[in-house]
Amino acid sequence: MAQEIEMELKRILIQETSGQQFIFLKERYGERSFPIVIGTAEAYAIDRRLKGIQSPRPLTHDLIFNVVTGMGGKLERIVINDLREVMVNGRPEFTYFAQLVIQQNNETVFIDSRPSDAIALGIVNSTPIYINEKVLNDATK
Amino acid sequence: MAQEIEMELKRILIQETSGQQFIFLKERYGERSFPIVIGTAEAYAIDRRLKGIQSPRPLTHDLIFNVVTGMGGKLERIVINDLREVMVNGRPEFTYFAQLVIQQNNETVFIDSRPSDAIALGIVNSTPIYINEKVLNDATK
Repeated sequence: MAQEIEMELKRILIQETSGQQFIFLKERYGERSFPIVIGTAEAYAIDRRLKGIQSPRPLTHDLIFNVVTGMGGKLERIVINDLREVMVNGRPEFTYFAQLVIQQNNETVFIDSRPSDAIALGIVNSTPIYINEKVLNDATK
Repeated sequence: MAQEIEMELKRILIQETSGQQFIFLKERYGERSFPIVIGTAEAYAIDRRLKGIQSPRPLTHDLIFNVVTGMGGKLERIVINDLREVMVNGRPEFTYFAQLVIQQNNETVFIDSRPSDAIALGIVNSTPIYINEKVLNDATK
């Protein structure tokens, strides 16, 4: 199994005039860091949940959290496990892939996710974020 | 238990210049219908999933669907179960509340949700949408 390195969310950069926002991840026990381009809705979700802003109704990532918990699961960690070129609006773009790692009845459930959704989900409970070592090497070379 | 009436999604109205979008629900076996104001991200999610547009990575409501399924659940129905005034940006606004009804290991799990997220989630599988009779009466009077 590939080695995984713990990361932390260092910064969110939201530019209101742009549809592309950025989060910056940094090694928890090291100095390497890199940006990930995310969507505006996910950037605001991360920002809102980081600040603990409450809503009268569950917003989308609150809903995901409530689904995981209501179905007897616990989000254990997030793993960014791939970086590859995919077609986005007809152009190839390097794109990160992640997984939610959920504990449920002593079993581990892996669910594919965009890093942005995974981090928006995990940020409230400071769920640890890991990255595959090869992906970190590719992201920071 | 209050009677519930089956509804269907009749129309989505997306105005690019507005942050407020609309969905229209109509009785499946009747003529009453009413609009619900929803957010832009949720409106695009409903529209995209209705049209079956695929993404290389799971978008947020695909993720919710995969969490429900991956944790051994099945979304059985959506129930719009309340309409009440809540404070939105410092002003009182009439706001709909809904629940996901999920079957998991012969048990029923209820998860609070905004109607928009619930419908974005259920639209792919034509999950039936119900509304509490009193809420329908209030919405259409």
